[in-house]
Amino acid sequence: MRPILTLTTDFGEGSRYVAAMKGVALSIAPDLTVVDISHCVPPQDIAAGARVLVEATPWFPAGTLHLAVIDPGVGSDRRIVYAEIGDQRYVCPDNGLLGLLAVEQKPRKLHTVSEAEYWLPDVSRTFHGRDIMAPVAARLCSGLAPERLGPAIDGLTPLAAARGIRVGQRIEGEVVELDSFGNLITNITAEMLTGVPRDLSVTVECDDHQTLGIYETYADQPPMTLIALVGSGGALELAIVEDSAAIMLGVKAGTPVVVRW
Amino acid sequence: MRPILTLTTDFGEGSRYVAAMKGVALSIAPDLTVVDISHCVPPQDIAAGARVLVEATPWFPAGTLHLAVIDPGVGSDRRIVYAEIGDQRYVCPDNGLLGLLAVEQKPRKLHTVSEAEYWLPDVSRTFHGRDIMAPVAARLCSGLAPERLGPAIDGLTPLAAARGIRVGQRIEGEVVELDSFGNLITNITAEMLTGVPRDLSVTVECDDHQTLGIYETYADQPPMTLIALVGSGGALELAIVEDSAAIMLGVKAGTPVVVRW
Amino acid sequence: MRPILTLTTDFGEGSRYVAAMKGVALSIAPDLTVVDISHCVPPQDIAAGARVLVEATPWFPAGTLHLAVIDPGVGSDRRIVYAEIGDQRYVCPDNGLLGLLAVEQKPRKLHTVSEAEYWLPDVSRTFHGRDIMAPVAARLCSGLAPERLGPAIDGLTPLAAARGIRVGQRIEGEVVELDSFGNLITNITAEMLTGVPRDLSVTVECDDHQTLGIYETYADQPPMTLIALVGSGGALELAIVEDSAAIMLGVKAGTPVVVRW
Repeated sequence: MRPILTLTTDFGEGSRYVAAMKGVALSIAPDLTVVDISHCVPPQDIAAGARVLVEATPWFPAGTLHLAVIDPGVGSDRRIVYAEIGDQRYVCPDNGLLGLLAVEQKPRKLHTVSEAEYWLPDVSRTFHGRDIMAPVAARLCSGLAPERLGPAIDGLTPLAAARGIRVGQRIEGEVVELDSFGNLITNITAEMLTGVPRDLSVTVECDDHQTLGIYETYADQPPMTLIALVGSGGALELAIVEDSAAIMLGVKAGTPVVVRW
Repeated sequence: MRPILTLTTDFGEGSRYVAAMKGVALSIAPDLTVVDISHCVPPQDIAAGARVLVEATPWFPAGTLHLAVIDPGVGSDRRIVYAEIGDQRYVCPDNGLLGLLAVEQKPRKLHTVSEAEYWLPDVSRTFHGRDIMAPVAARLCSGLAPERLGPAIDGLTPLAAARGIRVGQRIEGEVVELDSFGNLITNITAEMLTGVPRDLSVTVECDDHQTLGIYETYADQPPMTLIALVGSGGALELAIVEDSAAIMLGVKAGTPVVVRW
Repeated sequence: MRPILTLTTDFGEGSRYVAAMKGVALSIAPDLTVVDISHCVPPQDIAAGARVLVEATPWFPAGTLHLAVIDPGVGSDRRIVYAEIGDQRYVCPDNGLLGLLAVEQKPRKLHTVSEAEYWLPDVSRTFHGRDIMAPVAARLCSGLAPERLGPAIDGLTPLAAARGIRVGQRIEGEVVELDSFGNLITNITAEMLTGVPRDLSVTVECDDHQTLGIYETYADQPPMTLIALVGSGGALELAIVEDSAAIMLGVKAGTPVVVRW
């Protein structure tokens, strides 16, 4: 089995910088299988990157190495880290990118990436993804022991990210993302909805809009209906059946969402 | 030779959902070569997905497995199917996605995908691409016999898609797509143009615009000229040499196109 | 080690035409590792394609085959070429795409691609990427000697591209690209800045805007400051720390940039 390296960045689709990282990794480990997760993370949006990592990476084969470069602090003294969480492995800046993963499962092994012998010989000050993280990731895929990368550390920088809040028979959250179908993804998780009725006694409000009930699938309601459901990523979302809720409702990320029952 | 799995979806570039499908497939068949065909199919546009499949997939090595997830009916009782058409293999919802391929060549083998033992253990109601189709596709690439997936079926749901109509010395069609160069792709096929003269006795009209003759290549006319030609995909298209016909003419998908001679 | 084939085009993300090229290449050489460099080169923008190639391709393993299709002259008599530059190999139209690479290092081997026996049997007049270049590239990856492709040639068509000009204590250039972070990339290279002071005695002007000094990294100045620095691609760029210079300054490609000291 060939080692798998995934890439997640905010460089944009078709970025020559992503290509350079692939070139560096393949130069060190030519038999890598390189998989793009996403290069469309909004620029410098660490919380969005953390959501991509928590939803996509656990589906990969055990031992997959995930390299994530959303790195607004490049050139400052922010650390780069290696982490094992669940059965997956990660290399990224220690800026909260692993914050959602680390909430779900305690990291088993954590090291700084500080030993320069595993980096490119010349390190730029603006592109550590190419000069430090890509070569380190490729060497890990080729069998380098993570202990060699630098000292063990105790914990990761947490993600400064909002989560919904549940108080009594009320959950307050917000829209955190619009997906490509125009569905409104919230920061209210399936876990927070434990014990909440799914029938018409529950009200979900978003801005001026209101819907009753929490459904299981878009097909549970007729076209053009606003429905609330728990999406495949495990978050409450609002959708208009067969249309775009984002466009129809004019809702943006940050709009408050309230569940009452 | 490593088995090849291609992916075609309407999830958008950089989608974490596509990444999850790749993770699931590689977890089952780690030596797969995964190739992205397109994730930019307009949301829920089955006809556009069918055009991508008919133009791109026949170029792949015989036996390639093509997984296509444009699936507005997820959660309803629409079937998922396995099909062999030409020398290629397909797994997708039975909603017309294979409609253009099946018009060109009769499918040789058709099965429903109904045996749950080849799916993920937990199947969500909103994301069968990840939970049913990706694991089935990966198992087929690893040698699973398609007969195991479910009962043989007789036919596929046809594509409810417009084609141009030829009556006497006139063909009526429409613009079905604007490509990235701004060329206007129509639903008039090379086959429908059999016997139509290519010289200046043929008129091609689109909206208020008119051009004479059907050419073979953009270089047959000077820059800034409106020309009609049969594109590499086998469809009549209108182009402005070295510029964007979509922008220059302000034409959208759905605009009528008439060929007369 | 499996041979690596990279692809650079102006077909747009999710293009079925790119998929067809991959299908053709994998049909000839099924064990290829195919890597996308970029399909977001602006349509027919040869200079932009040349910048992608010069920045991304030298990072790949020696012997990698880079296929680039930005080909406004398809169907005319423009040549297709094979070139070895540095330790990389290229197949593309001879229209200036290799112009920046060839300025940095003299090509070691140059051949026309004119022997039709290595092409697809049927060659369209509008898509030589699929019908000529992809099969030739795949055969080169499988060991075909480049001498078989066609006669050796002496030189490449140069790139008709602007570079900054240095006269006395003044360099005049322009913004050539806005990256996905909104940084303004110029055509003033690190080499042209040799001997230029980096302290506050140097002035960088862009449109109405002015900044003093040339820094090494975004972190050298506080948020919302306009700074000039040499980016990881080796070009002078203007950036607003933690924000988008393109949006904040309203600057477009083509805007003059002047360095004085």
